[in-house]
Amino acid sequence: MLDFDIVEYQSRLEKTKSSMEKRGIEVLLITDPANMNYLSGYDAWSFYVHQMLIVIIDEPQPIWIGRFMDAAGAKAKTWMYDENIMSYPDYYVQSENYHPMEFIAEILEQIGHGNRAVGVEKEQYYFTAKSYEVLNEKLPNATFKDASQLVNWVRIIKSPQEIEYIRRAAKIAERSMYAGLKSIHTGARECDAAASIFFELVRGTEEYGGDYPSIVPMLPTGENTSTPHLTWSDQYFKEDNSVIVELAGCYKRYHCPLARTAHIGQAPEKLDRLAEIVAEGIDEVMSTVKPGIVLEELEEAWRRATRRYGIDKESRLGYSMGLNYPPDWGEHTASIRKGDQTVLQPNMTFHFIPGIWLDYYGLEMSESFLVTETGVEMFTDVPRELLIQSPFQLPDGSDGIIS
Amino acid sequence: MLDFDIVEYQSRLEKTKSSMEKRGIEVLLITDPANMNYLSGYDAWSFYVHQMLIVIIDEPQPIWIGRFMDAAGAKAKTWMYDENIMSYPDYYVQSENYHPMEFIAEILEQIGHGNRAVGVEKEQYYFTAKSYEVLNEKLPNATFKDASQLVNWVRIIKSPQEIEYIRRAAKIAERSMYAGLKSIHTGARECDAAASIFFELVRGTEEYGGDYPSIVPMLPTGENTSTPHLTWSDQYFKEDNSVIVELAGCYKRYHCPLARTAHIGQAPEKLDRLAEIVAEGIDEVMSTVKPGIVLEELEEAWRRATRRYGIDKESRLGYSMGLNYPPDWGEHTASIRKGDQTVLQPNMTFHFIPGIWLDYYGLEMSESFLVTETGVEMFTDVPRELLIQSPFQLPDGSDGIIS
Repeated sequence: MLDFDIVEYQSRLEKTKSSMEKRGIEVLLITDPANMNYLSGYDAWSFYVHQMLIVIIDEPQPIWIGRFMDAAGAKAKTWMYDENIMSYPDYYVQSENYHPMEFIAEILEQIGHGNRAVGVEKEQYYFTAKSYEVLNEKLPNATFKDASQLVNWVRIIKSPQEIEYIRRAAKIAERSMYAGLKSIHTGARECDAAASIFFELVRGTEEYGGDYPSIVPMLPTGENTSTPHLTWSDQYFKEDNSVIVELAGCYKRYHCPLARTAHIGQAPEKLDRLAEIVAEGIDEVMSTVKPGIVLEELEEAWRRATRRYGIDKESRLGYSMGLNYPPDWGEHTASIRKGDQTVLQPNMTFHFIPGIWLDYYGLEMSESFLVTETGVEMFTDVPRELLIQSPFQLPDGSDGIIS
Repeated sequence: MLDFDIVEYQSRLEKTKSSMEKRGIEVLLITDPANMNYLSGYDAWSFYVHQMLIVIIDEPQPIWIGRFMDAAGAKAKTWMYDENIMSYPDYYVQSENYHPMEFIAEILEQIGHGNRAVGVEKEQYYFTAKSYEVLNEKLPNATFKDASQLVNWVRIIKSPQEIEYIRRAAKIAERSMYAGLKSIHTGARECDAAASIFFELVRGTEEYGGDYPSIVPMLPTGENTSTPHLTWSDQYFKEDNSVIVELAGCYKRYHCPLARTAHIGQAPEKLDRLAEIVAEGIDEVMSTVKPGIVLEELEEAWRRATRRYGIDKESRLGYSMGLNYPPDWGEHTASIRKGDQTVLQPNMTFHFIPGIWLDYYGLEMSESFLVTETGVEMFTDVPRELLIQSPFQLPDGSDGIIS
């Protein structure tokens, strides 16, 4: 069963072809698993081997090429005819003697597209330097063009059904955040809290199950809150530890990221104050969001609100998000930062995450939001404050949040 | 705190340099996060942006280069001096105007290595075609060589401590498998079982916590058992469904993969028979494992045992495994398949997984094993048979396995 109506896939394909036309690309080789899913419906953990969706400007359906054992999955999960699912034999897999791009180049020659203008996603995790080298060598008559982010930009405006999927991911994100908070107290280990979060992320709600997020939950603790991307350990939480919880709910590969910071016990004055400043900055940014403005105006709004308190944040404040696969849930298109001239339009979706990492502590508080016809809508509803945890597990099993 | 003694990191570095020397490589640019971790200790979910470990043949310590906000994590998690941790400003991140490899090329020029023989991992997820293009352009005097899998091959023989980490991962794999089996019955959804598995994978044991596996648990169900890489849905399990459970326990990024097939209710004769044949094949292979033989002899042993029953498996039967990051737990070096001439040596570790995918059903049963001085040792201990599940959750909460 397809995750979207076939008409929606076809309209995505038309938009992609129109972008190809503008860039003079006749054959587009898509290796980003999110882009492959977006155009074909294909969803499997098979991106650790080479696979590709080929969009030919004058053909009605894309071609899927992957590993032999994955072809049955491609037939089951895509809207295309079975004839458009092709596969390479297993001896091409992780071999020093054969490369799947040799096989793919041969197919392109055979079906008469070896001498066309071929777009490749040069800046993409699953298109290796070697892949490009082999294609260049085996298709000497093709003209290669960089098509990085071509389909990503088509993805930036979401359909009503995509937005519904992100709303479901949002419900899962909220539940997982509360499950994590409940597990953060002395007597529990970081891995216990991460396990509780994962359980809720994957179980989902009674009505719909959760999908795996493209980044694992992060919960840097204590001094590690001064750096954003360390994962959990098996250390016990201690009184006076701060814990940053950054996670994303996921439904059918659509994400809703969410970050909060918790503190076990009495909050230090400076952290409490920092949380207030960040919340004020978020308020200012959210009241600025509306169609027609450009993204860097959100960065200005943030600076306007927080600079007077001595906050000077160099890193970007957020990014477009939605459908994705590991290792990232961001879409790699528009960023909320100085210089980004992307014009906000209704049905764009972003994660606004002004993480503050100082020498010995840090704070993250974020909001995922939808640009509406008139302004903004938040996907999740979790208090925008430092979340104070009781150091002790409460005997009645309640969540331990004391304020 | 480091995951290994500093002497172990240094010995790994020496082996890497000796391999560089043999291949005429003076400067090795390492972008595989597992290889970065192996040589430096660095462990963070930051591989979705460009980062690199540089090994210079005549320098005592590697250099880490990554995103500014990740540098504190690198200082905390590696054995190198803080001066060897360098970082690029945030405007290089996912930008159309700047590429981190420009920054890295500049550093290499500045420290006098821009004109040397430079090894790059061309066939690696996190080294994009664009990365290589930028390096070529910015370092016109360098001679580039393909160093794909150079460090991976150094990783193939494990130290006693690495083996201890895989043993811990094995305990976690067993517990997670049983938790999954307990959740597979009518009245539960695929996502509920996946959630239970994830919970155990991440919680780990009382003594040590679990880490995230590099591939999510897969549990293809019903007709989907005919294809290996589809993830879970939120459908309810039905009586007479088969369910393949493939997972890996993980401890400090070291994996122990494990697969079994369950059937809800009375097993169909043909599936039961298939499980017996596969178990017989595994027995034959395991009794063949010993130092000195080459890997393809294991494929021959498998064929010897199973061909007479009409099993003709085209895909590879397994691979070297251990330390890794998403999207794969395999090491991308030695494979158990025809033609692989790798000589088995003590302290190599493999996942033997002869998956059988037929038209409407399939079966996976696997073993992770260690090559010992005299033969083989299994990492996990789960019955090698089709695991029959009661269709109904048992009222006493017991595991529902009726045979």
